[in-house]
Amino acid sequence: MTTFVQKSLGRWRSQRSVHHLAFGHFEQVESELAIEPVAVDAPAVMALCEAWGVSPERAIAPFVMKWEGRSDWDGGQEVLAGECLLVPVPSQGKLLRDRGYAETLPAVGTFAFAPDGTFVLTTPYERAAAEERIWFVTDDVRYRVSSIRTSSGKGVVTASFSTEIRRLA
Amino acid sequence: MTTFVQKSLGRWRSQRSVHHLAFGHFEQVESELAIEPVAVDAPAVMALCEAWGVSPERAIAPFVMKWEGRSDWDGGQEVLAGECLLVPVPSQGKLLRDRGYAETLPAVGTFAFAPDGTFVLTTPYERAAAEERIWFVTDDVRYRVSSIRTSSGKGVVTASFSTEIRRLA
Repeated sequence: MTTFVQKSLGRWRSQRSVHHLAFGHFEQVESELAIEPVAVDAPAVMALCEAWGVSPERAIAPFVMKWEGRSDWDGGQEVLAGECLLVPVPSQGKLLRDRGYAETLPAVGTFAFAPDGTFVLTTPYERAAAEERIWFVTDDVRYRVSSIRTSSGKGVVTASFSTEIRRLA
Repeated sequence: MTTFVQKSLGRWRSQRSVHHLAFGHFEQVESELAIEPVAVDAPAVMALCEAWGVSPERAIAPFVMKWEGRSDWDGGQEVLAGECLLVPVPSQGKLLRDRGYAETLPAVGTFAFAPDGTFVLTTPYERAAAEERIWFVTDDVRYRVSSIRTSSGKGVVTASFSTEIRRLA
């Protein structure tokens, strides 16, 4: 996990395509991401661990992810921006977040690495479940495939694909 | 491989997003796919095996893939349609095709299944290499992530993501 976080640090230009499957609708999002390390003993990390009943000494390589982007959804040019704190707890296979993607509440996901190195994160929400698969195609190109499933797990509501290219400058 | 082909047979509605990475350009393709079995002793299968120097008795579960779609590329509404014959040769990890995607020439790719069941196909072309990863999210939803890499393998030129939903009617 530490290696994966270290490879992920930096600034990324992201192209994201969202497929709303029921309607056959496409959505396009262009954004800038920044992934920055956070001290393992930072107050916000301690607080998030406490909120989830996790001993802070089990946390490793916490990081902040910031994004700023534009979606073409609904013809708009709404600017989407935000940031969240993510705290991996590898001994429990957990990833704590101070807010989720599908809902704006704090979330805890379960992660594992597939044998080919793909990071697989599953996050249950009240009415849905999110699955995210992230892998490096090269050191400077990362793919991310996300699915929002119905809570029964039988159907897929939304699928998205992000290509993330490292900003070298 | 036989199981994978059998699960793939049928008609599919496909949404495909193409990311042209150098330009940050998005392309959207909507298409209908049909995947149909072909007799292992069909003349076209025998001919394709012979063309690649493969004994026809090594071929299993050959199939034809047909597609008809529309791309928004260049603002156009060009109809893309075609079909190709695919012949798996699992004992050699090869997939023979009578035409490729990246070029319209016959192609032979190398395939393997990742431990999580993902089908991974690599096809070298003269000036590029294509990698395709296909997996089932449910029995009726299939994802396909394709990359066109430079022939050195260091860069990714184009990435695409397809969500394929089974047509039940």
